[in-house]
Amino acid sequence: MQSLSELLQDLTRANKTKILLVVLDGLGGIPLPELNGQTELEAARTPNLDGLARRSSLGLTHPVLPGITPGSSAGHLALFGYEPLEWIIGRGVLEALGIGFSLQSQDVAVRGNFATVAYQNGSPVIIDRRAGRPATAETENICTCLQLAIRQINGVEIIIRPVKEHRFAVIFRGANLDARLSDTDPQKEGVAPLSVRSLAQAAESTAEIAAEFIRQAATVLIGEKKINYPLLRGFSQLPNLPSFANLYGLKAAAIAVYPMYRGLASLVGMKVLDCPGETIEAELTILKNHWSDFDYFFLHIKGTDSKGEDGDYQGKMAVLEDFDRQLPHILSLKPDVLVITGDHSTPARLKNHSWHPVPFLLHSPFVRCDHDVTGFHELACRQGSLGHFRAVHTMSLMLAHAGRLNKFSA
Amino acid sequence: MQSLSELLQDLTRANKTKILLVVLDGLGGIPLPELNGQTELEAARTPNLDGLARRSSLGLTHPVLPGITPGSSAGHLALFGYEPLEWIIGRGVLEALGIGFSLQSQDVAVRGNFATVAYQNGSPVIIDRRAGRPATAETENICTCLQLAIRQINGVEIIIRPVKEHRFAVIFRGANLDARLSDTDPQKEGVAPLSVRSLAQAAESTAEIAAEFIRQAATVLIGEKKINYPLLRGFSQLPNLPSFANLYGLKAAAIAVYPMYRGLASLVGMKVLDCPGETIEAELTILKNHWSDFDYFFLHIKGTDSKGEDGDYQGKMAVLEDFDRQLPHILSLKPDVLVITGDHSTPARLKNHSWHPVPFLLHSPFVRCDHDVTGFHELACRQGSLGHFRAVHTMSLMLAHAGRLNKFSA
Repeated sequence: MQSLSELLQDLTRANKTKILLVVLDGLGGIPLPELNGQTELEAARTPNLDGLARRSSLGLTHPVLPGITPGSSAGHLALFGYEPLEWIIGRGVLEALGIGFSLQSQDVAVRGNFATVAYQNGSPVIIDRRAGRPATAETENICTCLQLAIRQINGVEIIIRPVKEHRFAVIFRGANLDARLSDTDPQKEGVAPLSVRSLAQAAESTAEIAAEFIRQAATVLIGEKKINYPLLRGFSQLPNLPSFANLYGLKAAAIAVYPMYRGLASLVGMKVLDCPGETIEAELTILKNHWSDFDYFFLHIKGTDSKGEDGDYQGKMAVLEDFDRQLPHILSLKPDVLVITGDHSTPARLKNHSWHPVPFLLHSPFVRCDHDVTGFHELACRQGSLGHFRAVHTMSLMLAHAGRLNKFSA
Repeated sequence: MQSLSELLQDLTRANKTKILLVVLDGLGGIPLPELNGQTELEAARTPNLDGLARRSSLGLTHPVLPGITPGSSAGHLALFGYEPLEWIIGRGVLEALGIGFSLQSQDVAVRGNFATVAYQNGSPVIIDRRAGRPATAETENICTCLQLAIRQINGVEIIIRPVKEHRFAVIFRGANLDARLSDTDPQKEGVAPLSVRSLAQAAESTAEIAAEFIRQAATVLIGEKKINYPLLRGFSQLPNLPSFANLYGLKAAAIAVYPMYRGLASLVGMKVLDCPGETIEAELTILKNHWSDFDYFFLHIKGTDSKGEDGDYQGKMAVLEDFDRQLPHILSLKPDVLVITGDHSTPARLKNHSWHPVPFLLHSPFVRCDHDVTGFHELACRQGSLGHFRAVHTMSLMLAHAGRLNKFSA
């Protein structure tokens, strides 16, 4: 049986339509006692979205499967039409994307924690897996020192980059590298770090290089009291994702402020547009300026997720209301297909990603309008014309409404 | 790509929450002219369920797939998170579980029908596949006679047990048994019984033993006019189901009166609690007494299905109303996650299991409440926040709402 990607690739046809996917990150919520039992989206004053909802088809999506809480990469890959259970992006790659590092196809990336160890009979024992959560500036200094001391091992370039607090990334760059390596972080304290093991024969030389990196780094840091040992997990390489151009015949662009989402978009072959400002307004200016250059736009808005993770439901409402005020500018571009949804829910009450299905709005001249709904929110979407569906079908729905899919079979 | 079970096994984390699954067997119905076009659940007076529905999320489940009517084992396996299209429980095993027989892992079980044959030139021809549907007591007597005459064959113990009317079960117990054998019941009359064929080389010796059992039993019964031949079908062994403890990290208990459901629960590693009384009230006493001992409870209520199969819609309503009166006792235990659903529909109008989707209610502090519904019934569930989904996602939803699942991917 064909995969969904193969099916769409077979059916795709070109035309002049323009498709816009707006991802309000972490859009969905759950009822908050502080909001009289309403979700953030129900409580926010969003007259433009509510009006648009009555001229659109609504639904609810499962980013992965019912009950499963997705990470950001899984949520976005689904919206881009890639089966999230099949295409897994490793932690190391995601960390590198998150700091805007330009990974090459053969690079092996790994996420690092700086830890505190004590040496007993010459062997390290982990005292604190996060080295007391140092300030990011401290980690930046340590990474600079390490990078000066360690440039390459066995002909493989070693690139060390600080992330946030105790977190950093290491990128191994060279020939014949293989990421099938075990983690060294035992995920608990009072024990020794694990050694790197190769999980496939082809990864043995990479395992040796990683082990040597750890040895050299520990030696450089041996005099430090707090940040004195690297723990590594999530060795990974870029997945070989087929591109938007290849799968859908779309010339696609991404407008996103945060590096991780820019990185994800570049992985599927989107042109990632420069975005000097961080506001929704600034992003829309970029969208407008490039409107004639692409077939498909991915517009990412981070604020809804950030405020949700902070537990700031008023803040999340404010981002939604800000977006609502900007919506007429989007509509004035007259996209042939407009989807407004999220990559997952981030209820302010949970301060975290959640498994709850995500509100979904599809606007096009060819929808069945849910003209009887009160607006764009979870309770309305629950009964929308699109039903409840896996987010991986988003691309099919967008392409279909754009007239970009041929009939399947005879 | 991972299976759902593997995915959940990877994501599960432990905590102190308590999960309760109430299965009202055969819960769903279809409209009855006698009830003014209402289903049993719509017509029943269930104020407690209706109130709970407005503080819960509703949905409708497909036990297997739309349009597919499930047997009891498929319906329950789905609710327990096991893909029912993958994990098939053989008819012989199910028959043994149904009479409370304690199957061992190497046993081969088979379902038997007592038939009436006539001998033509010394060969049997089936006259009546069910031997005129004898009273159960007759079948019990015949089984006792057969068991006295046949104890073991080629070192394999033969255990013969009556079931109901013309039905019985045979369990073959010994080393190196293999259930890959063909049925001997041709499913029609006027023809000879089929011979047992081995469907795999490893099953050849078991085929010989089964054939010898049939020969000996026919010899014992040769003087009988009615019950004079055994027809066998559904040779099977226990499936090697991963346990609840292994998959979900749950210490699980089952409260069920009927042997088959007790058997199904034990197959997935639940502790099956002794249940001296047969009423819902008696089952709830057991639940209360063991509330502190387990993480997860499966509470099975049979009456809804029995009355549905009898075509007794008033009786099915009475069971629903009885359950509704007991509901406050369940709520007073304050389960962190409570699901009330069925394993399939058994509309009184059809007097049988059916394919209709099954009402589903999930109560937890973290649901989107369907506060606008009129109650707990098919029409309300159709528009619930959980949508329409396959019952195999029930475990994911319960674990998620219990805070027992980590985020998927990065």
